[in-house]
Amino acid sequence: MSEPSLDPRDWEAARKSFHAATDCCLEWLLDIRSRPVWQETPPAVKDALAEPLPASGTSLDALVDMFRSDILPHATGNLHPRFFGWVHGAGSVAGALGEMLAGFMNSNVAGRDHVAVYVERQVIEWCKTIFGFPAAASGLLTTGTSMASIIALAVARDAKGGADIRRRGIAAAPHRPVFYASREAHGAIAKACALLGLGEDALRMVPAGADFTLSVADLAAMIAADRAAGLAPAAVIATAGTVNTGAIDDLGAIAALCRAEGLWLHVDAAFGGLAILTPEFRSALLPMREADSIAFDFHKWLQVPYDAGCVLVRDEARHRASFSARREYLAHDGEALAGGDPWYCEYGPEMSRGFRALKVWFTIKAYGIDALTGVIARNCADARHLGKRIEASRVLSLLAPVSLNIVCFRFAPPGAPRASLDGVNEAIVAALQRDGIAAPSTTRIGGQLAIRVCVTNHRTTAADLDLLAREVGRLGRALLREAA
Amino acid sequence: MSEPSLDPRDWEAARKSFHAATDCCLEWLLDIRSRPVWQETPPAVKDALAEPLPASGTSLDALVDMFRSDILPHATGNLHPRFFGWVHGAGSVAGALGEMLAGFMNSNVAGRDHVAVYVERQVIEWCKTIFGFPAAASGLLTTGTSMASIIALAVARDAKGGADIRRRGIAAAPHRPVFYASREAHGAIAKACALLGLGEDALRMVPAGADFTLSVADLAAMIAADRAAGLAPAAVIATAGTVNTGAIDDLGAIAALCRAEGLWLHVDAAFGGLAILTPEFRSALLPMREADSIAFDFHKWLQVPYDAGCVLVRDEARHRASFSARREYLAHDGEALAGGDPWYCEYGPEMSRGFRALKVWFTIKAYGIDALTGVIARNCADARHLGKRIEASRVLSLLAPVSLNIVCFRFAPPGAPRASLDGVNEAIVAALQRDGIAAPSTTRIGGQLAIRVCVTNHRTTAADLDLLAREVGRLGRALLREAA
Repeated sequence: MSEPSLDPRDWEAARKSFHAATDCCLEWLLDIRSRPVWQETPPAVKDALAEPLPASGTSLDALVDMFRSDILPHATGNLHPRFFGWVHGAGSVAGALGEMLAGFMNSNVAGRDHVAVYVERQVIEWCKTIFGFPAAASGLLTTGTSMASIIALAVARDAKGGADIRRRGIAAAPHRPVFYASREAHGAIAKACALLGLGEDALRMVPAGADFTLSVADLAAMIAADRAAGLAPAAVIATAGTVNTGAIDDLGAIAALCRAEGLWLHVDAAFGGLAILTPEFRSALLPMREADSIAFDFHKWLQVPYDAGCVLVRDEARHRASFSARREYLAHDGEALAGGDPWYCEYGPEMSRGFRALKVWFTIKAYGIDALTGVIARNCADARHLGKRIEASRVLSLLAPVSLNIVCFRFAPPGAPRASLDGVNEAIVAALQRDGIAAPSTTRIGGQLAIRVCVTNHRTTAADLDLLAREVGRLGRALLREAA
Repeated sequence: MSEPSLDPRDWEAARKSFHAATDCCLEWLLDIRSRPVWQETPPAVKDALAEPLPASGTSLDALVDMFRSDILPHATGNLHPRFFGWVHGAGSVAGALGEMLAGFMNSNVAGRDHVAVYVERQVIEWCKTIFGFPAAASGLLTTGTSMASIIALAVARDAKGGADIRRRGIAAAPHRPVFYASREAHGAIAKACALLGLGEDALRMVPAGADFTLSVADLAAMIAADRAAGLAPAAVIATAGTVNTGAIDDLGAIAALCRAEGLWLHVDAAFGGLAILTPEFRSALLPMREADSIAFDFHKWLQVPYDAGCVLVRDEARHRASFSARREYLAHDGEALAGGDPWYCEYGPEMSRGFRALKVWFTIKAYGIDALTGVIARNCADARHLGKRIEASRVLSLLAPVSLNIVCFRFAPPGAPRASLDGVNEAIVAALQRDGIAAPSTTRIGGQLAIRVCVTNHRTTAADLDLLAREVGRLGRALLREAA
């Protein structure tokens, strides 16, 4: 064959490039504690990236060199044990191995009869076990909880809309469908309502109590008022671990209310849901098994590399009714490759789907669920440790109860000018990041700027949180002195 | 620290597992021609996968062994040069390397200031260059064209709906928005309309001509009729390469009509759009630069591993208006990690996004766009070669003009009973797949079952297509003899 493929002309050189790339990453991880948590991407690297569309190729070897010098050192930092920002998982070596193998296999898991379908089915079976969902439930791996919630809420909309919304659109609904979530719910829920054509206004924001959980009494009153106003209450989105403070809504009470009112219960369990595996949080999260749908991430607390989430739907027929579409070029009641029924494209909007199940399977297989649960339990214990330390401190002040793995606090020494504290704490976080010491993020709690610590990393220890508390104090005092 | 992370206890063993996994995959690829295109996943493998949630872990070494014996041999087959089904890219070694490195880095590219953001920006810049989009346009990497089109059509809906649809929902639109696409458009477009709450009925299916392209005269008439009926024509979805036959809609005429009528023009360019890089298809695809939005895949003709697609939107402000949402825990006008404005979560529904830009960047850098263009041009030339061979054959019959890389034909020897031909051709395809010889898929053209060949693989040669044509004839004759 004279026509060249893109396969390596020199296979041995390709092999060496993969080995060098692997070794580079493993060495990076081995020394991760000795590195700064985060380093700004230098202008020279940005300039080097900003090249015109390259006409000719570059050797794999040279690309691995560029990766080593320009790309890897300027990552987000979430591999480091003192990355505490947002909710970022730390990934894992087993997950990276699964990702590489999926990259080679290059499977499209939208359908057809091939092994990737069976791996994804097994991962979904394991998820049903974790959350106590029935065997007849359906599921789909997604890029994350945002997409998983969009899928679940599309099914809820179509199931509760009182018309053939899939075919005729929302305008055909006899009454405007409305959804409910706490004010502390993730912003992705309002975005989902906008995407689904319901409008952000269709998401009623229910007040939260002092513990930042949804007020069930307010929810009941709002449902009644909306019914009286001619609207069609359709679904409640409960949160199992709010992003701000880790609060877990009263899932049992919400489930009972949804049953009584005939509403769809969706649980946004993005990171917190998997704490159901720990003895400590099991009872609070157990009512998730009564939900109509659950959305959660593997790439947070299960240490699977980004991106990987999942939606589970109790009623498989409803799930399929919202997404299944058979066209003539997608016949799949057939033999050989055209088998493999049901196809995953019948459970979500995507007609091309990577083999992200493999990295999930590798991670769960490599570590076992007990060790993964141990990380979750330890992260929560370490968050409580930090909380106690802050409560005992004269200069640090806790802004919310510690729940799950999240601690919101700030530097607020007695006598410091109150008006300056937002700026001082913001500057503390920026300095911690810029100096590569630690990477918490910020949020606002009751109008006050908070340093927000989320411990989602299997490498983090209590000593890392002690160091953070000390450094916040040191930087805070220095900043106050400067300002004085 | 006594608390164990999930990091390897034996780093050298981990290194060896990665090397063994790499070598396994590269050896597989090196010998790909000698293997069956597809092998059914055996019941024993399905049984082995169907284990309960594992409590304890398994060594990486043992997992690589399972991968080698159970998983890799039962892949879809699209790495093989004689996989011709649906539209499946063949992936690439450079893409797999990028995927592995992204797996290690574990970046969330929803936002923040880190290098992955700059890599994705650069990939999007290259895409603007390819399609002639202005520098001010925005873009986002997605799992594929399905999601890319959903995003684009959400922006179109919000931009053309005549009300604040994002906030108030579709029911607030003064007139029902309707979209237009040819009957040959991909099923993902109707699914997008359902997801967006417009309803599948809001997608008007425009007749296609004998060349399977959208009838622009019918489109104009339907727009006029809908306006007269009080509906609000909002967008046209043109197809640059239909999935059935590879037909390219008359993009210039459709763009002119959209301009005259004030409609949004979205181009579904899933696989065919990248043929703009070839001299042969450049003029037919050049009007894509006049579109309001374009959706396309890297994981098809650009040989990037699944999943990786892209949406480009001409009007960045409109794009951002449909998806941007700032919450207190996502402040990003700040310093250090909180910088990096704009954040990619402002351009789509996902708040967690993997670093899929890295495998795209690796693929384009490793091969250069000229070699990648060469594959596209060669695949099209080989499809024409097969088409000519079929035209010259007494037993094979072409069912549609060859366009781009797609050939639809069937075994139909003179004198064969017409009623049997659908079944015979279905059986031919199943036998080709089952015997591991080749993997075309099927579709229906004008009511007839067609063998559908799509050449999207950098390893495919004209000889592979010759072999396919011979085997279709051989199997067809054998099947007719059996039936007689």
